[in-house]
Amino acid sequence: VERKPVIAVVGAGRNIEAAVLSARELGRLIADNGWVLITGGRDAGVMEAANKGAKEAKDSLTIGILPYPAADVSSSVDVAIVTDMGQARNNIIVLSADIVIASGIDGAGTASEVALAIKNGKQVILLDVDDKAREFFSGIDLDRVKVADSPKEAIEMARVLLRARGAEE
Amino acid sequence: VERKPVIAVVGAGRNIEAAVLSARELGRLIADNGWVLITGGRDAGVMEAANKGAKEAKDSLTIGILPYPAADVSSSVDVAIVTDMGQARNNIIVLSADIVIASGIDGAGTASEVALAIKNGKQVILLDVDDKAREFFSGIDLDRVKVADSPKEAIEMARVLLRARGAEE
Amino acid sequence: VERKPVIAVVGAGRNIEAAVLSARELGRLIADNGWVLITGGRDAGVMEAANKGAKEAKDSLTIGILPYPAADVSSSVDVAIVTDMGQARNNIIVLSADIVIASGIDGAGTASEVALAIKNGKQVILLDVDDKAREFFSGIDLDRVKVADSPKEAIEMARVLLRARGAEE
Amino acid sequence: VERKPVIAVVGAGRNIEAAVLSARELGRLIADNGWVLITGGRDAGVMEAANKGAKEAKDSLTIGILPYPAADVSSSVDVAIVTDMGQARNNIIVLSADIVIASGIDGAGTASEVALAIKNGKQVILLDVDDKAREFFSGIDLDRVKVADSPKEAIEMARVLLRARGAEE
Repeated sequence: VERKPVIAVVGAGRNIEAAVLSARELGRLIADNGWVLITGGRDAGVMEAANKGAKEAKDSLTIGILPYPAADVSSSVDVAIVTDMGQARNNIIVLSADIVIASGIDGAGTASEVALAIKNGKQVILLDVDDKAREFFSGIDLDRVKVADSPKEAIEMARVLLRARGAEE
Repeated sequence: VERKPVIAVVGAGRNIEAAVLSARELGRLIADNGWVLITGGRDAGVMEAANKGAKEAKDSLTIGILPYPAADVSSSVDVAIVTDMGQARNNIIVLSADIVIASGIDGAGTASEVALAIKNGKQVILLDVDDKAREFFSGIDLDRVKVADSPKEAIEMARVLLRARGAEE
Repeated sequence: VERKPVIAVVGAGRNIEAAVLSARELGRLIADNGWVLITGGRDAGVMEAANKGAKEAKDSLTIGILPYPAADVSSSVDVAIVTDMGQARNNIIVLSADIVIASGIDGAGTASEVALAIKNGKQVILLDVDDKAREFFSGIDLDRVKVADSPKEAIEMARVLLRARGAEE
Repeated sequence: VERKPVIAVVGAGRNIEAAVLSARELGRLIADNGWVLITGGRDAGVMEAANKGAKEAKDSLTIGILPYPAADVSSSVDVAIVTDMGQARNNIIVLSADIVIASGIDGAGTASEVALAIKNGKQVILLDVDDKAREFFSGIDLDRVKVADSPKEAIEMARVLLRARGAEE
């Protein structure tokens, strides 16, 4: 058996409308493609929205990488991985993903996830980000950072990246 | 949606026959019950056997918590969580499980998993263990440590523990 | 006994001249002030330079938080803390520091450290950073991010921050 | 400069009299030898006692590896490394030590530390342990596990082990 691609959706735990709407659509599209969704697993913001979106698809698998045992888990997470590592769990989220999609970078947590993803050699797709974030992260690694204008475009980029990787193997 | 119970099977990475045979049966029974199997994820010993066993069931979900990005993943793992934390990942395995079943304690890695499970307040079921291990861990916490004589008995114990927990909630 | 202040110096593992020169001066000034220096501990770039600088002072204590057991330790590190956690160790570096000084942000590793520091509520002082980094991180949290024009100014800022905190307690 | 040897003292957080008395003497002897003491850092049980003992020596360096930012730090810890990793920090304690001395194994936390130390190839010296623990851990790895009858004997064993290692290098 070949393992299904795993896509991480990262973003703020606060409810920022654009990021949350995008996350929901990302989640649904990821599940529609038969990919596994991985998030920070909490019952809040982009995490919750992406998981909810995935559950709107017929068949889906959602993995949440929780910061602490007492964290509130999104009710749309199928399997909760409990790290008890706080923000250090961000490294596990990105290491476990084939591709990382950031739906907004409105806080330091998401910024750390994007940075750790690049550092670990992962491809990152930025969505709903302002010019500062785009310029900063593109400046760090132009090859690994892409910017999408919509969830659909992000998913299309992910598909191309996965195909390219498959061709290499 | 309620999350499915998650059962960890831990044990040696070496191929100790009794432990590996038990692990395979444990994996199959866990999947037959509709529970999620979580292991250390490597392509070796008890981990590999439990995952293979789960894949003999009709429907199964197997999560592997890998020590490093370069670790060989069992081909029967559905989702690989890559921690890059070496032995510290043992804490994540047990924290993410409702119940931990040790199939043999033939090495220090498994001993650490059993100890971490007890420390984190998890129920542990020991299978194929010698008197020394049984006495040591029962001495540490008699309430949290049970000893089973067969995979079937271990699964029956797990079922009772899960039911008791469900009744409490 | 009161614990001495702990200052983290973070930056690239590559040898970028300005950042390395600044790091060396930062290390020396930190030790001159009687503070403990904490770094990523490796025998490279900003880490090595800061530790070397500290050892030029009469009395100094340098703690290195190593990514893996096999990592080359700077010979100017007094105590090597071995995490075996790769980039997730960045969270430990910043959590253990009272103040984090970034000497250049030329890569994703340092960016993750600055982001994790902000996320964990630490004060961050940026030195030798370009406009993109300055604008991105100031945009995330203006209160926690300061920009210094020289190692001396960074140390002066640190002194003020430490004093303010002491006054609060 | 050569780094000083680092000795970990691990044991219960509860106040078990024999273990705490031994830990205090261990701490003092470790510092008397010019070695660095590393512990779990909390203001309780064996950790606190070992650190206090070290501070009775003329010159000492005590490093505490804390489980969480909010943990109470022993007032005899010189440098607090804050992991925010709960029990997974145990892996860092043993990886950072040249030798691990357990002063009593009265709980699952200490058992996990001894197991992780063995797993990571460290030498372990057991003090104030009952027959069950002695037999269990000796059974796992006879080469790496020694039993001492007094703090003085434990320190003497540590000295021999450090010398043997030095000779090898």
